[in-house]
Amino acid sequence: MTEPRKITACLIIIGNEILSGRTQDANLAYLAKWLNSECGIQLTETRVIPDIEDTIVATVNEVRARFDYVFTTGGIGPTHDDITAESIAKAFGVPWELHPEAHEILKEYYGPEGLTSARARMACTPRGARLVDNPISKAPGFQMENVFVLAGIPMIMQAMLESLKHRLTGGLPVRSRSVLLHLPESMIAAGLRDMQNRHPTADIGSYPFYRQGKGGTSIVIRSTDEALNSRLAQEVFDMAVSLGGSPQFEESV
Amino acid sequence: MTEPRKITACLIIIGNEILSGRTQDANLAYLAKWLNSECGIQLTETRVIPDIEDTIVATVNEVRARFDYVFTTGGIGPTHDDITAESIAKAFGVPWELHPEAHEILKEYYGPEGLTSARARMACTPRGARLVDNPISKAPGFQMENVFVLAGIPMIMQAMLESLKHRLTGGLPVRSRSVLLHLPESMIAAGLRDMQNRHPTADIGSYPFYRQGKGGTSIVIRSTDEALNSRLAQEVFDMAVSLGGSPQFEESV
Repeated sequence: MTEPRKITACLIIIGNEILSGRTQDANLAYLAKWLNSECGIQLTETRVIPDIEDTIVATVNEVRARFDYVFTTGGIGPTHDDITAESIAKAFGVPWELHPEAHEILKEYYGPEGLTSARARMACTPRGARLVDNPISKAPGFQMENVFVLAGIPMIMQAMLESLKHRLTGGLPVRSRSVLLHLPESMIAAGLRDMQNRHPTADIGSYPFYRQGKGGTSIVIRSTDEALNSRLAQEVFDMAVSLGGSPQFEESV
Repeated sequence: MTEPRKITACLIIIGNEILSGRTQDANLAYLAKWLNSECGIQLTETRVIPDIEDTIVATVNEVRARFDYVFTTGGIGPTHDDITAESIAKAFGVPWELHPEAHEILKEYYGPEGLTSARARMACTPRGARLVDNPISKAPGFQMENVFVLAGIPMIMQAMLESLKHRLTGGLPVRSRSVLLHLPESMIAAGLRDMQNRHPTADIGSYPFYRQGKGGTSIVIRSTDEALNSRLAQEVFDMAVSLGGSPQFEESV
């Protein structure tokens, strides 16, 4: 039996405010967990890039050819620094223009007088875009082929994901089991390496931590096969017992 | 007078645990602020990539040619999933081998008996690497040309930065001023666009937010010229007053 092909995604986080350290990104971790658990899609790479048109165009064109799905967050508001939609149009070589359906949505939301030229920018998309519903503040995201263009504000990004979920086709979700050891990771390194060699379909990760001045290691086993995960977690548990590491099974994500 | 050239950096965050959403990255924001304030270096792009050798090699080789400095975090521990050092050696086309100085450091720390083969891995670097001191858990990071290979654990990554600071040469730090408006950003969009056109050396960002059910906008002005920042912040403030937006100057990062 061959492994089913992994369905991959790339996230492009667009925004100077993330790269300056002003804003802590919260979309990567949410998107990663949501894509895996809801759709069986694996976030495989992330880029954080500035609000510069050439960079957005080059990045989008590189990654849309390499990954099954691409998601962008940020830069779709009404101000001069919101250049994502225009840049995506350039990447696809199509005009950036008023999207009649988006225009109707915003006209209804703001009223005909409230739809200023700044707000009308939010009704412009690359030609041929399919809208992504925004149940919170109405200004829609959009889809061009395998590229989904979403808001940067986490609450809105999350709502947009729900509304586009039926357009995504994934595979089996990756499940995980996790064991916490009161051991430095170097003590269990040889056993883990051997286990990884015996089970190439599982991804065995070892993550040292320091909490309240005490060190330890979390071992995380990830694969699409829950029975395998449980077996390997038990093997790690037993290995740690034999090394005096007082292991505990952990909540796993 | 021409603008001094911006000194750029790229961060490569290496780790499946970030891409799965298990671990929230904390290094990007710290590194961005530290590089700017301590060294006058601008974080210009970030990649988050998995623990896969080919991906690490390709990413490092792409970005070390494009940015003045490259920093990597993660993957330099003792376990099988710590493949950063070997991958960097491949990227530079040199052997991955025991570094005598790193070997001495670890032998002193663990004692000759405590230096297991797993731990000895942490004394291996690409040939020609210059070590980066780790005052916390001793296992060093290293530098190859403009690439700095650091630990993923934030506390250790931060300590390593302090110890390599004298090797970095930057330019003027970017300073910022920030104004909070009780207005939707679309109301001030036209004025900001005009201001950005008049002042191309400043980076004017507009960031909408929702707090306790109320929306507003933060305007952040960033440039190396503090007097210009103050002038533009005052201009934004006055613009907001005229629009009824009850502005406040904010703490800025």
